[in-house]
Amino acid sequence: MFGITVRDHLMIAHSFHGEVFGPAQRLHGATFLVDATFRREHLDADNIVVDIGLATRELAAVVGALNYRNLDNEPDFAGVNTSTEFLAKVIADRLADRVHRGTLGEGARELAGITVTLHESHVAWASHERAL
Amino acid sequence: MFGITVRDHLMIAHSFHGEVFGPAQRLHGATFLVDATFRREHLDADNIVVDIGLATRELAAVVGALNYRNLDNEPDFAGVNTSTEFLAKVIADRLADRVHRGTLGEGARELAGITVTLHESHVAWASHERAL
Amino acid sequence: MFGITVRDHLMIAHSFHGEVFGPAQRLHGATFLVDATFRREHLDADNIVVDIGLATRELAAVVGALNYRNLDNEPDFAGVNTSTEFLAKVIADRLADRVHRGTLGEGARELAGITVTLHESHVAWASHERAL
Amino acid sequence: MFGITVRDHLMIAHSFHGEVFGPAQRLHGATFLVDATFRREHLDADNIVVDIGLATRELAAVVGALNYRNLDNEPDFAGVNTSTEFLAKVIADRLADRVHRGTLGEGARELAGITVTLHESHVAWASHERAL
Amino acid sequence: MFGITVRDHLMIAHSFHGEVFGPAQRLHGATFLVDATFRREHLDADNIVVDIGLATRELAAVVGALNYRNLDNEPDFAGVNTSTEFLAKVIADRLADRVHRGTLGEGARELAGITVTLHESHVAWASHERAL
Amino acid sequence: MFGITVRDHLMIAHSFHGEVFGPAQRLHGATFLVDATFRREHLDADNIVVDIGLATRELAAVVGALNYRNLDNEPDFAGVNTSTEFLAKVIADRLADRVHRGTLGEGARELAGITVTLHESHVAWASHERAL
Repeated sequence: MFGITVRDHLMIAHSFHGEVFGPAQRLHGATFLVDATFRREHLDADNIVVDIGLATRELAAVVGALNYRNLDNEPDFAGVNTSTEFLAKVIADRLADRVHRGTLGEGARELAGITVTLHESHVAWASHERAL
Repeated sequence: MFGITVRDHLMIAHSFHGEVFGPAQRLHGATFLVDATFRREHLDADNIVVDIGLATRELAAVVGALNYRNLDNEPDFAGVNTSTEFLAKVIADRLADRVHRGTLGEGARELAGITVTLHESHVAWASHERAL
Repeated sequence: MFGITVRDHLMIAHSFHGEVFGPAQRLHGATFLVDATFRREHLDADNIVVDIGLATRELAAVVGALNYRNLDNEPDFAGVNTSTEFLAKVIADRLADRVHRGTLGEGARELAGITVTLHESHVAWASHERAL
Repeated sequence: MFGITVRDHLMIAHSFHGEVFGPAQRLHGATFLVDATFRREHLDADNIVVDIGLATRELAAVVGALNYRNLDNEPDFAGVNTSTEFLAKVIADRLADRVHRGTLGEGARELAGITVTLHESHVAWASHERAL
Repeated sequence: MFGITVRDHLMIAHSFHGEVFGPAQRLHGATFLVDATFRREHLDADNIVVDIGLATRELAAVVGALNYRNLDNEPDFAGVNTSTEFLAKVIADRLADRVHRGTLGEGARELAGITVTLHESHVAWASHERAL
Repeated sequence: MFGITVRDHLMIAHSFHGEVFGPAQRLHGATFLVDATFRREHLDADNIVVDIGLATRELAAVVGALNYRNLDNEPDFAGVNTSTEFLAKVIADRLADRVHRGTLGEGARELAGITVTLHESHVAWASHERAL
């Protein structure tokens, strides 16, 4: 199995609902380093998993739709705790949509899966892994 | 599949038995960066894998029981080579015990598995992965 | 010249005023990795720059007073752009106050200076350096 | 499952064929950080996955045969795009050969698999995972 | 004194002249992580050292003029060893020119100095520091 | 001013004397990442600060004389707290001796200074800077 990963980042505000979150129930924020991994059983005719230029562009588009926002005000996340693990799934699912729509190239339809990891600090990160 | 990881560290002395270890047969030491990953198929009602505060506290407790010690003198490790890969298993197993005892919260009983990675330097690390 | 550095982190929300900030004029947030360096010409009688335990505790106290907050609502920062470089100075100055009040130990009065670096992402950071 | 990883690096020149590569069709170069992970179900009699000294030496030998070269002129890679993901497979396969030939020690024959990850920058990396 | 740093990267081929360089006399290549630090005594009216957006754009322009090239064929570097330390100076000088031409904003004329650090691997880096 | 830095690492056991050290008074250990920076006003005839191959070899020699040891038993450190900042000075001074003896090459006699940084974990490091 092969994988390629590209990294981008995201700077957002949000708050959490539930006692489990302690002081993070207050409005605060985070920088998330976002690592998107694309997996594939065999390389394509160009000897790659996916065009790294397209992967970078599409990740930037997904990240850009969330960046510099207060997630508490985003209709997509109304009433939802936008935890690091949840956001990893949001980004993985949006990348999967783009793979299915063909914006990562025709060859990307052969991808086996996507993993997205969000680092919220140097001591905590979360990931979501899904098939395609 | 979702995962969250928290990082702590550990500073210990130890020595190894066996020619394969070369100069590491002498009493020396290591800083281990300890990454504990908790995996789970679905998020809980709070939209998380596990309470990151509890995960951090429990990892600190497991690490604290080993920290600032000469492992050659610890009864738990008598006659055992406390290699990086072995210590990764020790920490993973001790975290699993805590999950089973409920100290990571009731929801943590839904966890699927734990992976512990110990970095002994910038050029070498080891991990142990287990089910729960 | 000697230096020791301890790292902590901070998760805040804020917004900026001024066209130069582009989309960062919207309410967003950041994780700041905070590196506090203490400098000293000669080591003390214990052969250290400053007690690393006290340095870690005092940095945690300074960081804790800012953590999990919306800086736009903090009276200390009313009408001020809480840029990364500005926050580096805030933290350096608060650490300097603590040095002068003696909470880093009597020996810390011999410190020559403090540098604080805040990493806002893997591709951008800022620092402030001051004498003591 | 246990794993140990050792890191080395590689500095090469190469060019790519195919419009998908854009400006990377020109002769350019890369530093690849090379992480080789060896996986094994159970530890050996010394309580290790594999002798980390031998693993480091064998990875250095594999990396050394590629280092400080223009890969466009290497007979092994004639007419091939030496992408990061392809080179991860080359290194994984060459390490597997060495495991099978016994140069990582007799015990290494119990290894379950190898993963090689090549970091081409702080924002892009690729990996290949294979059984043994 | 304040500083802000932005990071970009560069992938080039080159070779060196002189026995001191050993195997690096052959055509090979490198990824350079490029950290550009801008220093300033006092913050400007927006409470910043320099517009981080402009700093990022200008560093990308300087890096883009070198990226994906064989430096042995660049007229600017004819007969010159394009060592990591030399390239750090090239980039620092080109950024200084842009500061003087005003492309980092009028306020950037107050900058005190620039430091450029190029990381050629995880175990070697070089820097050049200059006044403005 | 130019600088080049090479990184190596060191794994030792030691203990500290003095209440300020708390649990670190017990025999424990550390991995130190060791970064040695060599500074110079102007580049030499080869366009470098110092031969990076020689710098790496000499740092490895200095590190090798301390590696895999219990520093409490080293005659050089009898009765001394081998703190991170103290060890940074030991390594800087030993590198300076080697520069003066010519083992980093004749050109290295033009070096202006050395800085050694020892990272004891991902959250704490110390450095010593000296002239040559």
